[in-house]
Amino acid sequence: MLTTNPFDDDKLREECGIFGIWGADNAASFVALGLHALQHRGQEAAGITSFDGKHFHTHKAMGHVAGNFDRDKVMRPLAGSTAIGHVRYATTGESSLRNAQPLFAEMAEGGFAVAQNGNLSNAMKLRRTLNRRGSIFQSTSDTEVIIHLVATSSFSNRLDQLTDALKQVEGAYSLLVLTEDGLVACRDPLGIRPLVMGKLGEATIFASETVALDVIGARYLRDVEPGEVILVNDGGTRSFRPFEKLAPRPCIFEHVYFSRPDSIAEGKSVYEVRKNIGAELSREAPVEADYVVPVPDSGVPAAIGFSQASGIPFELGIIRSHYVGRTFIQPSQEVRHLGVKLKHNANSALVAGKRIVLIDDSIVRGTTSVKIVQMMRDAGAKEVHMRIASPPTRHSCFYGVDTPERAKLLAAQMGIEQMRDYINADSLAFISIEGLYRAMGEERDGVKPQRCDACFTGDYPTQLTDVAEKEAAVSLSLVASR
Amino acid sequence: MLTTNPFDDDKLREECGIFGIWGADNAASFVALGLHALQHRGQEAAGITSFDGKHFHTHKAMGHVAGNFDRDKVMRPLAGSTAIGHVRYATTGESSLRNAQPLFAEMAEGGFAVAQNGNLSNAMKLRRTLNRRGSIFQSTSDTEVIIHLVATSSFSNRLDQLTDALKQVEGAYSLLVLTEDGLVACRDPLGIRPLVMGKLGEATIFASETVALDVIGARYLRDVEPGEVILVNDGGTRSFRPFEKLAPRPCIFEHVYFSRPDSIAEGKSVYEVRKNIGAELSREAPVEADYVVPVPDSGVPAAIGFSQASGIPFELGIIRSHYVGRTFIQPSQEVRHLGVKLKHNANSALVAGKRIVLIDDSIVRGTTSVKIVQMMRDAGAKEVHMRIASPPTRHSCFYGVDTPERAKLLAAQMGIEQMRDYINADSLAFISIEGLYRAMGEERDGVKPQRCDACFTGDYPTQLTDVAEKEAAVSLSLVASR
Amino acid sequence: MLTTNPFDDDKLREECGIFGIWGADNAASFVALGLHALQHRGQEAAGITSFDGKHFHTHKAMGHVAGNFDRDKVMRPLAGSTAIGHVRYATTGESSLRNAQPLFAEMAEGGFAVAQNGNLSNAMKLRRTLNRRGSIFQSTSDTEVIIHLVATSSFSNRLDQLTDALKQVEGAYSLLVLTEDGLVACRDPLGIRPLVMGKLGEATIFASETVALDVIGARYLRDVEPGEVILVNDGGTRSFRPFEKLAPRPCIFEHVYFSRPDSIAEGKSVYEVRKNIGAELSREAPVEADYVVPVPDSGVPAAIGFSQASGIPFELGIIRSHYVGRTFIQPSQEVRHLGVKLKHNANSALVAGKRIVLIDDSIVRGTTSVKIVQMMRDAGAKEVHMRIASPPTRHSCFYGVDTPERAKLLAAQMGIEQMRDYINADSLAFISIEGLYRAMGEERDGVKPQRCDACFTGDYPTQLTDVAEKEAAVSLSLVASR
Amino acid sequence: MLTTNPFDDDKLREECGIFGIWGADNAASFVALGLHALQHRGQEAAGITSFDGKHFHTHKAMGHVAGNFDRDKVMRPLAGSTAIGHVRYATTGESSLRNAQPLFAEMAEGGFAVAQNGNLSNAMKLRRTLNRRGSIFQSTSDTEVIIHLVATSSFSNRLDQLTDALKQVEGAYSLLVLTEDGLVACRDPLGIRPLVMGKLGEATIFASETVALDVIGARYLRDVEPGEVILVNDGGTRSFRPFEKLAPRPCIFEHVYFSRPDSIAEGKSVYEVRKNIGAELSREAPVEADYVVPVPDSGVPAAIGFSQASGIPFELGIIRSHYVGRTFIQPSQEVRHLGVKLKHNANSALVAGKRIVLIDDSIVRGTTSVKIVQMMRDAGAKEVHMRIASPPTRHSCFYGVDTPERAKLLAAQMGIEQMRDYINADSLAFISIEGLYRAMGEERDGVKPQRCDACFTGDYPTQLTDVAEKEAAVSLSLVASR
Repeated sequence: MLTTNPFDDDKLREECGIFGIWGADNAASFVALGLHALQHRGQEAAGITSFDGKHFHTHKAMGHVAGNFDRDKVMRPLAGSTAIGHVRYATTGESSLRNAQPLFAEMAEGGFAVAQNGNLSNAMKLRRTLNRRGSIFQSTSDTEVIIHLVATSSFSNRLDQLTDALKQVEGAYSLLVLTEDGLVACRDPLGIRPLVMGKLGEATIFASETVALDVIGARYLRDVEPGEVILVNDGGTRSFRPFEKLAPRPCIFEHVYFSRPDSIAEGKSVYEVRKNIGAELSREAPVEADYVVPVPDSGVPAAIGFSQASGIPFELGIIRSHYVGRTFIQPSQEVRHLGVKLKHNANSALVAGKRIVLIDDSIVRGTTSVKIVQMMRDAGAKEVHMRIASPPTRHSCFYGVDTPERAKLLAAQMGIEQMRDYINADSLAFISIEGLYRAMGEERDGVKPQRCDACFTGDYPTQLTDVAEKEAAVSLSLVASR
Repeated sequence: MLTTNPFDDDKLREECGIFGIWGADNAASFVALGLHALQHRGQEAAGITSFDGKHFHTHKAMGHVAGNFDRDKVMRPLAGSTAIGHVRYATTGESSLRNAQPLFAEMAEGGFAVAQNGNLSNAMKLRRTLNRRGSIFQSTSDTEVIIHLVATSSFSNRLDQLTDALKQVEGAYSLLVLTEDGLVACRDPLGIRPLVMGKLGEATIFASETVALDVIGARYLRDVEPGEVILVNDGGTRSFRPFEKLAPRPCIFEHVYFSRPDSIAEGKSVYEVRKNIGAELSREAPVEADYVVPVPDSGVPAAIGFSQASGIPFELGIIRSHYVGRTFIQPSQEVRHLGVKLKHNANSALVAGKRIVLIDDSIVRGTTSVKIVQMMRDAGAKEVHMRIASPPTRHSCFYGVDTPERAKLLAAQMGIEQMRDYINADSLAFISIEGLYRAMGEERDGVKPQRCDACFTGDYPTQLTDVAEKEAAVSLSLVASR
Repeated sequence: MLTTNPFDDDKLREECGIFGIWGADNAASFVALGLHALQHRGQEAAGITSFDGKHFHTHKAMGHVAGNFDRDKVMRPLAGSTAIGHVRYATTGESSLRNAQPLFAEMAEGGFAVAQNGNLSNAMKLRRTLNRRGSIFQSTSDTEVIIHLVATSSFSNRLDQLTDALKQVEGAYSLLVLTEDGLVACRDPLGIRPLVMGKLGEATIFASETVALDVIGARYLRDVEPGEVILVNDGGTRSFRPFEKLAPRPCIFEHVYFSRPDSIAEGKSVYEVRKNIGAELSREAPVEADYVVPVPDSGVPAAIGFSQASGIPFELGIIRSHYVGRTFIQPSQEVRHLGVKLKHNANSALVAGKRIVLIDDSIVRGTTSVKIVQMMRDAGAKEVHMRIASPPTRHSCFYGVDTPERAKLLAAQMGIEQMRDYINADSLAFISIEGLYRAMGEERDGVKPQRCDACFTGDYPTQLTDVAEKEAAVSLSLVASR
Repeated sequence: MLTTNPFDDDKLREECGIFGIWGADNAASFVALGLHALQHRGQEAAGITSFDGKHFHTHKAMGHVAGNFDRDKVMRPLAGSTAIGHVRYATTGESSLRNAQPLFAEMAEGGFAVAQNGNLSNAMKLRRTLNRRGSIFQSTSDTEVIIHLVATSSFSNRLDQLTDALKQVEGAYSLLVLTEDGLVACRDPLGIRPLVMGKLGEATIFASETVALDVIGARYLRDVEPGEVILVNDGGTRSFRPFEKLAPRPCIFEHVYFSRPDSIAEGKSVYEVRKNIGAELSREAPVEADYVVPVPDSGVPAAIGFSQASGIPFELGIIRSHYVGRTFIQPSQEVRHLGVKLKHNANSALVAGKRIVLIDDSIVRGTTSVKIVQMMRDAGAKEVHMRIASPPTRHSCFYGVDTPERAKLLAAQMGIEQMRDYINADSLAFISIEGLYRAMGEERDGVKPQRCDACFTGDYPTQLTDVAEKEAAVSLSLVASR
């Protein structure tokens, strides 16, 4: 049972997971295992680049790590004692191998490979400038901007070139860079996306989540700090602080949904935070009911928390198939709404005649909620109360999370009561933004929030240059077309 | 969350699931959906045969239903308003497309397609006899014996030919047969393997489990009864009883592990029976502990039952990856035991310093149990108590379930205390065979048990001709070689 | 340059080539090479069965020998010092792997593999009888009839079973059979299809043509004689004559088109016979012209013969692409007739303003001839005279050659002058049937022809049971429908 | 029958063929047909880029045009009324999709696609300079240098950027460039590689050879002239002469071997030139013999010329298989020399006891010649005289033709008599360089040859910067290591 539900199309989706290791024989094999543990962060494509002291070796493939990086034929050529890897999420738009990472470039000073989790909010603008100067892009990935900024930097030292490049970008980035000079890990000044550091014997490891350390039996050392640049090579491990110091704003949604429940994020057990959210929710929005039923699998920890705090028994009222991810040909009109049943089926014997509290982690478009509530009613539930383990998702994310445009976010269009009516529940409640911070053991600072919670509040911690230019262009064209 | 764990190699495995429908446009599309819901009963291969009134159409493929039966190119040729389908389990031995079902033969009287769940215990003997008479086999499947018995039957009527054939076989079989005369469903006289009947509008449906009815919104009608032969065609639905009446012996392990928790088997909720088993187990083998932790996913319902009956909180102490089913190249010696972590990871923040009751559905070879207990200890658990939701599995199944040979069944080699020591648990208990029947609301009849529980008791309800001949041959060769 | 033109869809096509070897390490590798040399006899599918003294091993694949039988992974499992193989022609109808040969059956007495070149003219009738007795067919191949006749034979000895079976069939067959008792080669009593025998060191080889001996450096020994059955095993090579002796009728078309020009068929050089045909044709139908131009590649030897006998220079007026065999999407209407240019292009610089004698081996449907003549005219040829190196093809072949139904044979529908008009040539002539025999150094016996020339004359050397029954059924239904 | 022999590994190989069209609906379909006709110029990979007025569409694939560009799924997305394409030769070294052409770049001014036939002799040097300025290369192709030179050019107009780039390169190039401004064709100032222009209705076409015009029924207009740049767009067709005027030096080997015999190159029939070479050769090096035998297929036209001039009959003494291009597993040691027989087989019945003149187009390594002569002797030839339709190949080509390094060129290592001995012929003669020019109707200017004949004479028409630097580096390191 995982928090992330890889198949669900009504969830926000992480764009990426990254993993790197320095100082281990067959480094690429460790990367494959680490990426496998981060697979929930991206299922579209995976890639590994290794360096054997002389040559860089890259293999990328559409699809999962397992099945693509488990054969000797693929792994043997990925030689060397250092390697980085990347898993990428299946966006609905352009999804092609050329956007898979690590991206690699042969520069005048030698090879340069990079894997990024995050998103640059001024990538389009930088790209246009580079383009005009004669840089030719291979991909549509924002990460390639960093490569060209490095290639055209006037500095002569690799690390200087990299920080020179990073000072020109805005947005969220946790980066792993592999060059002939060593392995570099860095996190943007606000630390929006996570990055942790671990050790396995003499080897140094960086990963998006601690589960990727667990899978290879590595020890968690510490988080890479916001704005920190760490260089690992034969000379040891050195930490740099090239950026102006800012108050951190790590993404709060990692705790709600993205991270695996067995990860430790910012020193907190993800599982425990989710149980706390469930408990908090049972206090904020109590209800009389027979059973607490999670929407599997991501709703389970919050449902356990809700059950323990309220005393209402936890039961599996919805069973989820392991074998999903494909559509089927509809046999006929009368079975048009089969979609949801392919994934979920009501445990009718349990549910019939009972009052049910459904626990889900979030509502994005609302499409799944509508079907799930209906499924409970069809199974004979007497009452269906929906409780959501996050505040209403009202704003798009521009930091590496695939959110639908605002117009498709249910909570951006409707009030709570209207939503309740829309999904046809007997009651509906979301945890408050304050409750969410409380579940993490904090009190939200309304002026300078401790985290990035922009998807709930609209309070974006960076400039959004590309968005602003696009909106300006739109309004300009509106003016022009009058 | 599903009870069945499709990837686990330390479980008994169902050999097959079957689904058939008569009287629905695009019958094959319904079969694809039904088979998808039965995918946990077999992941090796899937097949569908349809009949369009003139021609039979078959498509079979290695792998899952989704991915093979979801494209128009495949489904359109499977024309007709009646069809049968089959999913088959991935045995480690010969696993090839030619053994995938439905098997089809063009006979003098027309086409004949058959899909079977079960296993014939005198197939080898019958095969030799047929071989000597000139029958040529296409597969190594025991099901093909039925086809040749039908083809060489001296009866002239299809149904007579089929019952003539079935009277010669022994063992377990739930069968769907498609001929130009209609769709035939039958279950062996002991009813060892399940088969249910449903309706969707005017269409008649047969399936291994009720979840396959749910997925297409069909209504459960009744179980096909042991020894019953049902013919469905334009003339309606007729039931026959060609065999001598015997006391039924349905498989008890369907309730313990094989069936999905949201199925209704023999009128009982599988989920509820499993919760009852957990509760019964907490009474038979109580323990003082901090948390009840299921081995995911199959141990979850029993763990909920154990928790509710004992008052010990239910917690997710083990997190299971969604992305499993492949092996990886071992990076080095020191990480040799990574296997289990690829599938399961300890929720260390929860487990550390606590007394844990682990709930699993069964122990087969014991390999997983050893790793899981060790994983809990590595995560800092103070005590680890193992409770198993079935009696010790001591005997092989010859009725369509893939069991290791006896020498590899842990419980056939060791006593309980020795097993406890082997898996390194602080305590170990299995539910008693009587407790298991009680959880089903029955009292076990020690002389003539109401069910087939041979895997626990060795009390086989049929002759085992092939096994007996093989053993005779072995002892003969031992005599000869003295 | 080969006589056979593998891509041309306006030719008669051989159905098969066979190759077998006894007594050579890695027998299957020799078979692969031999089949490769026989590839012009069948491009649809290829197969090899080997026997290693204990087990039979079979691999079959759609497509060419090269590409399917050149990898170690495929060849290593085909262990043993004896093996047989088969190449099969791509018929437009049902072309599937299950009809690829060798066909193999596990019988009560052991394994039995068979590869056939030819066609049985009473296969349908035998099949129905076997079907009624309970035999179940795996393929639609007529060869499978032989297998079931063997399996159900009342004889106990393999060779007796085989001759028992062969006495029941009618038609053309050159067979290679592999059993645990040895390798058997046999040719039908009329010797319609070819089969030669050779030696390579101690190994004994059978093949459809001598080029398959050449490719492995083997020595041609002799033809297998019509009606002869040869058994090769550790006991040596024995020849049997189980059938009534008949006057042989080998296929004359092998010399005209099927065989490779570098083969020796019935002791005659195929190349020389074809040159003779060209010379004979120049005497039978002389013409004043500037150049003799072959339709590549099969028309080349006859064109050389025509040129040498007439003194008119031989020139390449048509160039043929090596890269054909696929269709392309038509860019637009105006280039609709591109088809022929993808394969052939006029050598316009040569042809313009000249009188051309085109030499082709045969006219089947006439579609290619129409295009070729037009291509010459478009290139500026002043006159185009067509000379055909075989008599008009007026009858279907039922002995293993894929002929269009009679209604599509141009010469069955039209007289010579009408054909000339149809293909728009300035003159058209076919060699006479007597001329064809003369080119082979024989005088045709009009009463009992020395060869099967039924495609030209309609004089079929065997009964055509299936054809007769089908025609009877048609006329019956015509009567009934009046 | 084609002059080019696509499978032979003992030939020089053309690196590429190009085809472009402006002003035709479904332009890409024409390109596919044109490339198919140029397939003999490159079998490794093929690619097409089209422009639909808004977007550029590219598809590239390893392998042949047929099979990759014949499906609707591939062709439909290649929308637009202008397109360019490329076929690339299978070099033994790095052969990957990323080097397939057309290469495409999204530049600040819009898309830019390029397809090149030829090779730049200062590409490495330019690449290093561009690298140092921050340009990142995607491929190892020399053609990409042109792209980066264009992208970083200080000119603002597309055509100016392109000529700016071309003025910096040296070597051989026939180029097709597709931009939003139109289709550009250009040929290097010496016109080393060919490029012709044609019309089909309103559409303008460029292609490496006239056969690509023939295949779509287009009309040959004229050759693109050395140093000419032609721009085709909605504004019409304009010709530019941006380079200093030089005396042209077109490649002479196109006539000897590369071009298809049905092409017209520089206004001359390739077939006729080759026949002339054969006739010239019979005068330069006459011999008494029974038959003239071509080494198929490329030796055929010269053999016809030799036969007609000498009066010795032309015969097919060697038969070539259509089904080649793959290696087979050697069955055993004794058949080690099977290689040549897979491709060629002696027509033994013809050859035995006869004096043979073998005609081949060239000798590169000599490996094939050794085998062919031996094959004739094994077949019983009394005498074997070898005549070669080109002068001895003694020097590498640096202009887009894959030549072995000099050390592997037989004629660079041996004199004629030594070669004769090596290939074991009774006599050996090559046509003289003067004879070759004569066959083309010219007299060779020894001081300023009219053609590039460097492979025979070592007289390279351009600087060879990369070669010079490499040799300098080598001698430097030799000095250093003393």
